[in-house]
Amino acid sequence: MHAITIAAMQLPLAGGSVQNIAAVSDMVVAAAEKGAEIILPPELFSGPYFCTIEDEALFALAAPTADHPSVRAMQKLAKQLKVAIPTSFFERDGHHHYNSLAMIDDNGEILGVYRKSHIPDGPGYEEKFFFRPGNSGFKVWDVKGTRIGVGICWDQWYPECARAMALMGAELLLYPTAIGSEPYDAALNTADMWRRVMQGHAAANAMPVIASNRVGRETDAAGNHQSYYGHSFITNERGDLIAEYGDNEDGILIASIDLEAARLFRAGMGFFRDRRPELYGRLTEDR
Amino acid sequence: MHAITIAAMQLPLAGGSVQNIAAVSDMVVAAAEKGAEIILPPELFSGPYFCTIEDEALFALAAPTADHPSVRAMQKLAKQLKVAIPTSFFERDGHHHYNSLAMIDDNGEILGVYRKSHIPDGPGYEEKFFFRPGNSGFKVWDVKGTRIGVGICWDQWYPECARAMALMGAELLLYPTAIGSEPYDAALNTADMWRRVMQGHAAANAMPVIASNRVGRETDAAGNHQSYYGHSFITNERGDLIAEYGDNEDGILIASIDLEAARLFRAGMGFFRDRRPELYGRLTEDR
Repeated sequence: MHAITIAAMQLPLAGGSVQNIAAVSDMVVAAAEKGAEIILPPELFSGPYFCTIEDEALFALAAPTADHPSVRAMQKLAKQLKVAIPTSFFERDGHHHYNSLAMIDDNGEILGVYRKSHIPDGPGYEEKFFFRPGNSGFKVWDVKGTRIGVGICWDQWYPECARAMALMGAELLLYPTAIGSEPYDAALNTADMWRRVMQGHAAANAMPVIASNRVGRETDAAGNHQSYYGHSFITNERGDLIAEYGDNEDGILIASIDLEAARLFRAGMGFFRDRRPELYGRLTEDR
Repeated sequence: MHAITIAAMQLPLAGGSVQNIAAVSDMVVAAAEKGAEIILPPELFSGPYFCTIEDEALFALAAPTADHPSVRAMQKLAKQLKVAIPTSFFERDGHHHYNSLAMIDDNGEILGVYRKSHIPDGPGYEEKFFFRPGNSGFKVWDVKGTRIGVGICWDQWYPECARAMALMGAELLLYPTAIGSEPYDAALNTADMWRRVMQGHAAANAMPVIASNRVGRETDAAGNHQSYYGHSFITNERGDLIAEYGDNEDGILIASIDLEAARLFRAGMGFFRDRRPELYGRLTEDR
């Protein structure tokens, strides 16, 4: 048996950078104390989710990878606790701005940066104003004796992203996220659909999926309220929820995954054996 | 509002060709009487699911499209009832054998044939012995004022198949299927995982998914028993189950889909807007 212990987390992030990074750090420490080896904080955790309004002043939140306070704090913690921390942050790279993730390994080193490929845009989630669509391509990383793929929030709706990471050898798929209410439609709660699509990735690729979301109400400078619905979870390799929160809880979710059992199950199902890549060309056409 | 009424069906198919085709025909008639315009029988309904044993004698069940009794019976019914019937059958084409589907429109004409692309193989489901992997590519058809895509059973596990059909303009995804117990592992029930992956396709493509499965126990010539778990369903464009059966029921499932509402929802979610086909090349590589 080759097991790995992973942790998701769910927490309110309405505060400022110092407060939020401290809150995430506390959860990282708590997860590590419970044996977690890979610990996933939510998307853009260093502040409130700022994409509710299109305001150029908010670009001041971006920083180069090595300088971003979230990255620096998680590097220090990762090294100290010997854990891997996929760290979501707002990246500035020259005149470009990305919704990025620094993969920090258990030495506190940055293995690389993934830049969110799929950028949403709509009321409450005006990300196309802030983020250039990522130019890194999908990424996987070897950490803690396994290989993981990380997508960022809106990426989680895309089977292509999950499959690409799986084909690159990922054994676990992780998604930091910031999703909640839809200001234009109070009746629309996407939580079920959001979980469903990722549980679908787990089933289709026969591998565990981990998602960390923020929770609770935030108010932006324009006085808009937006609530984040939590529902963070960990699935097994069949897409069953093995750890989960609702929309009114915060804390850490921990699960131990038997990677060898997952590998055998995946091989036995034969999904990868029976793929027909020569038939999938339509997916790569720009039309 | 542009609505369409669709029907799935679930029934035992342990009998012979005449009996099974009569049972399916009765359900097609019943569905049409309830207003269904597109009616989906299960996979390979003209007999018991025969791929439990690798026996060359079973190739005698195959026939050219125009001669197959399932196709002929459904053509007659489709014309008479003015309904479209995606009809699964065992196709012989020269020395080739395919797990195929004839798309029969409401004039009783065959619009084309789709040949199952993904062929499973394992205890109880020895399809690689019988079926050449399909060479038709994925297909969509215009019927009853909408465009539908149909995958066949194992295809349903593949996000690539669902996405390709969606990109080809499908507004509804249909899957005839024959799936049930796993003879090598009595504890393994894939019903939840099977539904999950298709509900994932519905969510990821923001369109309804319809699946028809056989139900009940069948015994093959070698005395092997295999039970099919039903769980046929229809989802809406968010992947919510709006009509469903368990593993101990048979009959027809009917749902009316507001195609215009689904189209607006799909556009509003923006999943197709935000795709990055230039990043999906890994999916088409044969490695």
